[in-house]
Amino acid sequence: MNITTPRIPSGFNEYLPAEQIEFNRLLDIVRSVYEKYGFAPLDTPILELSEVLLAKGGGETEQQVYRFERGRNDLTMRYDLTVPLARYVAQHEGALTIPFRRYQIGKVYRAERAQAGRFREFYQCDIDVIGSRSTLIDAELPVIINEIFERFGFGEFTIRLNNRMILNGFFEALGLSEQSKDVLRVVDKIEKISVDSFVDELTQLGLTQEQIATLQTFVSLSGTNDEVLASLESLGIDSPDFRLGVEKLSELVASLRAMKVPESRFLIDLKIARGLDYYTGTVYETILDEHPSIGSVCSGGRYDDLASHYSKTQLPGVGVSIGLTRLFYQLKEAGLVTADTQSLSRVVVLPMTPAEYSLAGEVATDLRCAGVATILYSEPNDLSKKMKYVDKMGCTYAVVIGADEARNGVVSIKDMRSGEQRQAPLDDLVASLADLK
Amino acid sequence: MNITTPRIPSGFNEYLPAEQIEFNRLLDIVRSVYEKYGFAPLDTPILELSEVLLAKGGGETEQQVYRFERGRNDLTMRYDLTVPLARYVAQHEGALTIPFRRYQIGKVYRAERAQAGRFREFYQCDIDVIGSRSTLIDAELPVIINEIFERFGFGEFTIRLNNRMILNGFFEALGLSEQSKDVLRVVDKIEKISVDSFVDELTQLGLTQEQIATLQTFVSLSGTNDEVLASLESLGIDSPDFRLGVEKLSELVASLRAMKVPESRFLIDLKIARGLDYYTGTVYETILDEHPSIGSVCSGGRYDDLASHYSKTQLPGVGVSIGLTRLFYQLKEAGLVTADTQSLSRVVVLPMTPAEYSLAGEVATDLRCAGVATILYSEPNDLSKKMKYVDKMGCTYAVVIGADEARNGVVSIKDMRSGEQRQAPLDDLVASLADLK
Repeated sequence: MNITTPRIPSGFNEYLPAEQIEFNRLLDIVRSVYEKYGFAPLDTPILELSEVLLAKGGGETEQQVYRFERGRNDLTMRYDLTVPLARYVAQHEGALTIPFRRYQIGKVYRAERAQAGRFREFYQCDIDVIGSRSTLIDAELPVIINEIFERFGFGEFTIRLNNRMILNGFFEALGLSEQSKDVLRVVDKIEKISVDSFVDELTQLGLTQEQIATLQTFVSLSGTNDEVLASLESLGIDSPDFRLGVEKLSELVASLRAMKVPESRFLIDLKIARGLDYYTGTVYETILDEHPSIGSVCSGGRYDDLASHYSKTQLPGVGVSIGLTRLFYQLKEAGLVTADTQSLSRVVVLPMTPAEYSLAGEVATDLRCAGVATILYSEPNDLSKKMKYVDKMGCTYAVVIGADEARNGVVSIKDMRSGEQRQAPLDDLVASLADLK
Repeated sequence: MNITTPRIPSGFNEYLPAEQIEFNRLLDIVRSVYEKYGFAPLDTPILELSEVLLAKGGGETEQQVYRFERGRNDLTMRYDLTVPLARYVAQHEGALTIPFRRYQIGKVYRAERAQAGRFREFYQCDIDVIGSRSTLIDAELPVIINEIFERFGFGEFTIRLNNRMILNGFFEALGLSEQSKDVLRVVDKIEKISVDSFVDELTQLGLTQEQIATLQTFVSLSGTNDEVLASLESLGIDSPDFRLGVEKLSELVASLRAMKVPESRFLIDLKIARGLDYYTGTVYETILDEHPSIGSVCSGGRYDDLASHYSKTQLPGVGVSIGLTRLFYQLKEAGLVTADTQSLSRVVVLPMTPAEYSLAGEVATDLRCAGVATILYSEPNDLSKKMKYVDKMGCTYAVVIGADEARNGVVSIKDMRSGEQRQAPLDDLVASLADLK
């Protein structure tokens, strides 16, 4: 028979079992925290009608889609989870309870140029609250980010906060209302480009040396959260947007304290702008303190009008997203991922010969009924090969059942870490394993 | 702005929150049972190279794929999880520990003609053990099916068992070795077609009236599992395949008893053939006793050579699959799905005005820290609107915090089922809710 070389397309990704287990552990943390905060699951199709998905048009991301025709359908694979959310909320508006708190964890597709750390298929883990303007919800999202990254255990991190109204109000006060979108985009890049490029780009937008200097001083305001808030208030900037933004940011800080996010974990940073057009209020980025070069690992913000392409109802909301595939790749590169077991089971039951299969089946059933994840290994080979399997899988306990054990109504339990071996009565195995821990 | 009508392509599917929650409950049952039986997660790309995915060629399913070109890549969306598994095992052969026990739960794509109950995007939940010929593993799969459908709670069910070797051995004894594949395909349809069609189709394959009559009698053998096994042995059929098949089936029945599957849940049924070519040993189908018209809700079997298109290594294995999207649809049609809550949270915290936001944030944080899934509702409206939200969401407890409560250091808890209301001290809320159950 002809053999086709087994391989996957470039830019796509799959894990070996040990890594998959670790990846899923992170996914589970995200999901369980999202659910604890009252977000309901959503699962939209990966294929959408191109006319609907690409209704907005333009945009770089929209160029990088997997789009094709099949029969009478022009179809596109989703490239994020936000546009499908907008479509979903508009489509099912009457059936949803507002505010609509949903999470969606799923794969999205971008036909990007393949390069290290960039994927054409990757997981996004999104939460959004649709249909609310409450600032308390702006505060809940960093609380959630805090809990997730704390449970991830990849070291300290900082959630950087800003409010678009502050930036827009400041631009307005500088007389830059017209160029505000473009200026915002340059500010968004400030940490990635040189000072010279920053000045150049702003100069090209028509800003004077003085405006640029003022802007630089402004976005570099630093200090504790209270100090930055005090500085913002003392600037005396005459813009309703600016004042409202400062008020919201101040409320956000107070709520984060009430919800017990450690002060070291969140920081007002006026350089945080977020590139996307649709943000209108609070914006977030999250940095791993010891790995700043990874960039933001969780970002988002508040928007005024989610579904303007699909509905006349104005739907404000706020959301954040974690790009877990990319983050996992970067954590691996940084040596932060430990993936040393190929199994979710700690116990392997090993009948020595087919004569013990039934007994081994009973033992495995008892363990599983007690909630112990168990592998039943019944390959016809010798004890050393059986033990090699347990070892390779990274399981903790080998439960051996041979002719002697069967006759005496016991099992032999080997602790793979210490090498210690002991016998336990068959009818007491679950308790024995629990004792061993 | 132009409004595009929000909609999804025909044959695709998405749920409202209450249904999504119920669907995910079933997915979680499947996943947790798979994991308890020592299967590791796998997650392959949805897009594969057409040359690789379609290496086998032919086949009806292979005609119904979403295939397209992008750049230099000819890509196809996966149409099942078995071919990607074969590709994965062959690709990563050296890195996997054999036997390889994996589960994969994911969406697959078929550009079928859209009709009720047929989906173009649907979940499959597969487990397979690759690289083992142990009959004990043939028995583990029905044990898993038994636990999953017991936990689903959709009434009694029967796992029907057979072994391809018995059928092939019987065909051989009848002198039908050459037509065995075609005869098998007709036997596979026996419950879906009339007796006349059955006879017609076999006649067209060249079977005599006598052969057809013998075959009919054979596949209709019924009785308890022990009775059918005794009948099979008493037939005295002179075929090594037949004898080995009966021996394997007998071992399977013994192992299922050892692993405590109730006798009422599994039944030897010689009509079970499974249409797919690649099965070579044990085959399974599962029927909901009160809803036989749904057909098999979980099927699978043993195969000799999973990855023959991708590797020269012969990889035997055994697996089953649950098509959960289709099953869920059919359960809904049969009125067996109850989806009456839009939330995974039972508790909603309701600050009456912004003055109580901070306190409400603290209360919500305490509950969440104690593991209680909690919604924080901070819309600026009156109590009746707040209660309407709690009611619509299907949550159990409304925790109201107004000016009085804040002053007195208490919260008001309303049980939405009974309408009863009581106060609880702020610092004892978690315990109070636990008491209320």
